[in-house]
Amino acid sequence: MWLDEVKWDDAGLVPAIAQDAASGRILMMAWMDREALQLTAATHEAHYYSRSRRKQWRKGEESGHVQQVQELRLDCDGDVIVLQIKQLGAIACHTGRQSCFYRRLEQGAWIVTDPVLKDPSTIYSNGKA
Amino acid sequence: MWLDEVKWDDAGLVPAIAQDAASGRILMMAWMDREALQLTAATHEAHYYSRSRRKQWRKGEESGHVQQVQELRLDCDGDVIVLQIKQLGAIACHTGRQSCFYRRLEQGAWIVTDPVLKDPSTIYSNGKA
Repeated sequence: MWLDEVKWDDAGLVPAIAQDAASGRILMMAWMDREALQLTAATHEAHYYSRSRRKQWRKGEESGHVQQVQELRLDCDGDVIVLQIKQLGAIACHTGRQSCFYRRLEQGAWIVTDPVLKDPSTIYSNGKA
Repeated sequence: MWLDEVKWDDAGLVPAIAQDAASGRILMMAWMDREALQLTAATHEAHYYSRSRRKQWRKGEESGHVQQVQELRLDCDGDVIVLQIKQLGAIACHTGRQSCFYRRLEQGAWIVTDPVLKDPSTIYSNGKA
């Protein structure tokens, strides 16, 4: 079975990279457990596993920023996933930005390059990510 | 200091995603320790840390498939790096393919979509990745 070909780490997780299918921009990296990956493939909506909250979650379940999955890929070692997605709401990051990778290294400092598109306090009803 | 803003995991590592700066294709994901990231920024050539070999390495040191780094980004949580690179030799994967993500999920199976561009036995002088 395809899920058995994934090499889960000691915590039962793999990194999953979400890439915007249209622009090619890398929007975020999160973690998946077996159930999250299975649900992602079955529903075509990205599911992840939160290591801090210790629970599986559907991306956008609070924010509405659902990720529609168009393709799933596995790497040579079987321990990293890439998702080609359509990002609903055009915001992937809990800070209200398009991408989580909004800081660029410039002359020895991480410089913020991307604007906040939406105030996070208006994204999450309970004020949390 | 910028290296102190990176949230290293319990093993002192962060995932680093290498993206082709021209095509946008995600070529590989590997791990970096503090020294690898520092060397990457200083030399503009990607350095990683091999968890299996337990040593830091310069990408392409055996194969010649050096990654010239054009940009480094850090994510919102400070625990994932994205590198925009130019891939010398046009091969990032130790299997001799352009990208490590050469398998796509189709109807419950991982299907190989990418050709081997170069026989791995001719890439590595000692036959190892």
